[in-house]
Amino acid sequence: MPETPEASAVRFAPLPSPFRLRKGGWLQQAQVAYECWGELNADRSNAILLFTGLSPSAHARSSAENPEPGWWEKMIGPGLALDTDRWFVMCVNSLGSCFGSTGPASINPATGRPYRLSFPELSVEDIARAGYEAARSLGIEKLDTVMGPSLGGMVAVAFAAVAPGGARRLVSISGSPGALPFAISLRSLQREAIVSDPAWQSGNYLDPLHGPQSGMRIARKLGTITYRSAEEWRLRFGRNSLTPTGRRAVAQAMKRSPEGFGPRFDVESYLEAQAERFVRVFDPNCYLYLSRALDGFDLRDHGEPVEVMKRAGLESALVIGVESDLLFTIREQAEIAAMLEQAGVPTRFARLPCIEGHDAFLVDLPRFDAAIRSFLNS
Amino acid sequence: MPETPEASAVRFAPLPSPFRLRKGGWLQQAQVAYECWGELNADRSNAILLFTGLSPSAHARSSAENPEPGWWEKMIGPGLALDTDRWFVMCVNSLGSCFGSTGPASINPATGRPYRLSFPELSVEDIARAGYEAARSLGIEKLDTVMGPSLGGMVAVAFAAVAPGGARRLVSISGSPGALPFAISLRSLQREAIVSDPAWQSGNYLDPLHGPQSGMRIARKLGTITYRSAEEWRLRFGRNSLTPTGRRAVAQAMKRSPEGFGPRFDVESYLEAQAERFVRVFDPNCYLYLSRALDGFDLRDHGEPVEVMKRAGLESALVIGVESDLLFTIREQAEIAAMLEQAGVPTRFARLPCIEGHDAFLVDLPRFDAAIRSFLNS
Repeated sequence: MPETPEASAVRFAPLPSPFRLRKGGWLQQAQVAYECWGELNADRSNAILLFTGLSPSAHARSSAENPEPGWWEKMIGPGLALDTDRWFVMCVNSLGSCFGSTGPASINPATGRPYRLSFPELSVEDIARAGYEAARSLGIEKLDTVMGPSLGGMVAVAFAAVAPGGARRLVSISGSPGALPFAISLRSLQREAIVSDPAWQSGNYLDPLHGPQSGMRIARKLGTITYRSAEEWRLRFGRNSLTPTGRRAVAQAMKRSPEGFGPRFDVESYLEAQAERFVRVFDPNCYLYLSRALDGFDLRDHGEPVEVMKRAGLESALVIGVESDLLFTIREQAEIAAMLEQAGVPTRFARLPCIEGHDAFLVDLPRFDAAIRSFLNS
Repeated sequence: MPETPEASAVRFAPLPSPFRLRKGGWLQQAQVAYECWGELNADRSNAILLFTGLSPSAHARSSAENPEPGWWEKMIGPGLALDTDRWFVMCVNSLGSCFGSTGPASINPATGRPYRLSFPELSVEDIARAGYEAARSLGIEKLDTVMGPSLGGMVAVAFAAVAPGGARRLVSISGSPGALPFAISLRSLQREAIVSDPAWQSGNYLDPLHGPQSGMRIARKLGTITYRSAEEWRLRFGRNSLTPTGRRAVAQAMKRSPEGFGPRFDVESYLEAQAERFVRVFDPNCYLYLSRALDGFDLRDHGEPVEVMKRAGLESALVIGVESDLLFTIREQAEIAAMLEQAGVPTRFARLPCIEGHDAFLVDLPRFDAAIRSFLNS
């Protein structure tokens, strides 16, 4: 059941049915979409399970079936940090998302219609367990490494809690042991922009193109702003103004008058381009479910964090954080590293001075490459 | 023509008519609302002109006529940092705002109807000039000190450019010599939330209560988030959850279902309370005009900044910045201090380690009191 342009490289793992969710609901005949690169070895001991941020699909890297560059194209492949000559790399689309995994935009087999808001409440732990089931569907009971950036980092931490013994190693990149109020308030506001758009229709819009585009545009722009840093944008955009032609073009894209309160600066054009791409492909209800799951995660729900990490059965861990990250603060990264250390897990903490903020893992690749390559080869 | 609850303490200064605006438009019979405290001395040499941030009125401090606490209540008064036993303190409502000064919500005398979007484009320099005219209406040609926080800091810097010789001293608090792309992008998004709310009706809503409340709510919440810091909120709210009763109450205030994507955390309740207060009193078109004026300001429009400051005729200056300020970065404060120094103006730069972000001037009063008191008394 291919649902995306890159469907040709996507495979699907059925989840045990019913698949019970942490907050009490359950799914019938659910599935997880994934892509993989490299060869699984005979004893299935060389697998890396990669979770994603809130919005990407499982297409982390190009392949013969789908030559489009993936979201971590330069990090996965022969000789790269996630070296596919050695590792079998598997990236999953999060449960609850809209790129092949079951989510609010999927058809509920019981009704033959999209779940929409009848989809049960989703948690970060559910995403972790669903990803683990995808690995198990290939006969992999123990991963070499579970890893992910952003939401994916949170999912990797949750994985350690809900699948003890499921991975030898953990790599958490700009994740969190529990969402904090600054990030919660930003996500709360993103959700408010979506649900207060009349076109949301309590979740009953026809499809993303006929849905709450204005709310989604605001949500995505707010995301884009907080994924970066003031210093990076100062250097990149300064006070550069749009030309009159540029103003008109951006205003038209925004269905707004070029005069008055329309765009005037280059940075506004950049934000609009980011939002325009996103609004076309991402389902608003899926966004709401994933966003709320991020807020809800708290490792302490599983017990005292150091005890939780002791039970996880990890042999080593790498925690990467970025000093300029507004959303998943360096403090949270230090907290993850400290709890792992205290649990007796040999842990490296890479505190990176990138200026690109939360998104640095997509941009400042040399630093991430070095930290991850060296850890995986150790 | 009292327009606000605290009107009894408000006075009005007529502006020269027509009052020409920097971007080309003009106003007839415009006025500036102000309040004052302390006594103007015989040679009119003890006046402090105080500009405000984007949203406050001229009511910076209580008085016999209006005992309601003002927005800087603990900073202005007998024996306080702005010591009214010594200084005559005058706070102006910005031109373009909606608390007595002429703005988009005011009646255009030529038509007898509100200006709305027919109000000419506003600039920070216009706010500075209008404030200066209010002082001149009292016979004050040279202020002892011009000062302001946030937008008011920007206005104070603009004052130095457009009214050379108009003040002996300058105090810029968390201002900017020119808006940078991170702050521009946040304000652009706030404006987008307002103008994409169908109730905005291209500016033709009846009044704020029947206007783009949902867009204004989003704009204000985004403001509130970026006026503070992640660290302050971590300490203040943590992951504290709303009780079921609290959830219902906040959801009701938001006209939202308490289930689903309604509020769950204390921080969401705080944001809602902030927004609710604001939405009731602030005119959306005024917000749009002031917000765009902030983006548009660039001291370099007046020439090389050091040369501009040389011409300003300042005897000394104090620049205060907050390290945790996301919106008006400490770098911008250092830049203002440096240009003043290079212009030969003896300048103090107070780089404050407050954790309250941009709003620290309203919260961390001891640090601001000390810096301002010592400067004013020097």
